[in-house]
Amino acid sequence: MKLDHVNIATPDADGTAKLLSDLFDLPVVKRVEVADQGVKVVKLDCGNAVVELTEPLGPDTPVGRFLAKNRPGLHHMCFAVSDIRAEIARLKSKGVEFVNDEPKLGAAGLPIVFLHPKSTAGVLVELVEKRDA
Amino acid sequence: MKLDHVNIATPDADGTAKLLSDLFDLPVVKRVEVADQGVKVVKLDCGNAVVELTEPLGPDTPVGRFLAKNRPGLHHMCFAVSDIRAEIARLKSKGVEFVNDEPKLGAAGLPIVFLHPKSTAGVLVELVEKRDA
Repeated sequence: MKLDHVNIATPDADGTAKLLSDLFDLPVVKRVEVADQGVKVVKLDCGNAVVELTEPLGPDTPVGRFLAKNRPGLHHMCFAVSDIRAEIARLKSKGVEFVNDEPKLGAAGLPIVFLHPKSTAGVLVELVEKRDA
Repeated sequence: MKLDHVNIATPDADGTAKLLSDLFDLPVVKRVEVADQGVKVVKLDCGNAVVELTEPLGPDTPVGRFLAKNRPGLHHMCFAVSDIRAEIARLKSKGVEFVNDEPKLGAAGLPIVFLHPKSTAGVLVELVEKRDA
């Protein structure tokens, strides 16, 4: 599976985007709010993958709760898959648990799902469906 | 700058490699101990980038101290640069501080350097010199 993006949780997505974009010469390729997940998302393009920044839209959101307990920093990594429902079924057959079983639409308007970190060595892993993956 | 790898700190690099390799169909492409940095490193190939696992060789090592204070999980991300000394100079001119100013040889036998997270929005960032980057 290809690495689609690495995600950073931050209280200030625009400020962090400006900083990292300037330091590492990464163009900002997307800014969007995903109300369903309570986040503002800014994406920086590395050419081969994306660095994604998420800022919580409020304290009572998944990223808001994360930042109440943790410092800003790396939050999750995401792999691209061509058929997310087939992958969910395959991974469940291996005993993997999911944060949400049913795919939701992510910042790119594509189906996403999060695996539970207890199934993946403590790392929060997202899958995104990209038909050409 | 291209994303070279995402790193995961783990107390058991081989066990984590076996798990993630199986779940996400990522071949193990390298196993090496880097005594200088006190780590055992296992690399999983995603095609476009690498997922790198580091296990501390002892408690009094950078990753050993990290795992004494944090749960296993995402540790740093790394960008590839063609001239690491030129990048260090460029970033210092922007006020960036480094964990180590002088490049060391990393798991791939290539020069690496770590930027201090306080200069990079809380994220530990590594640079690796790859002449074709």
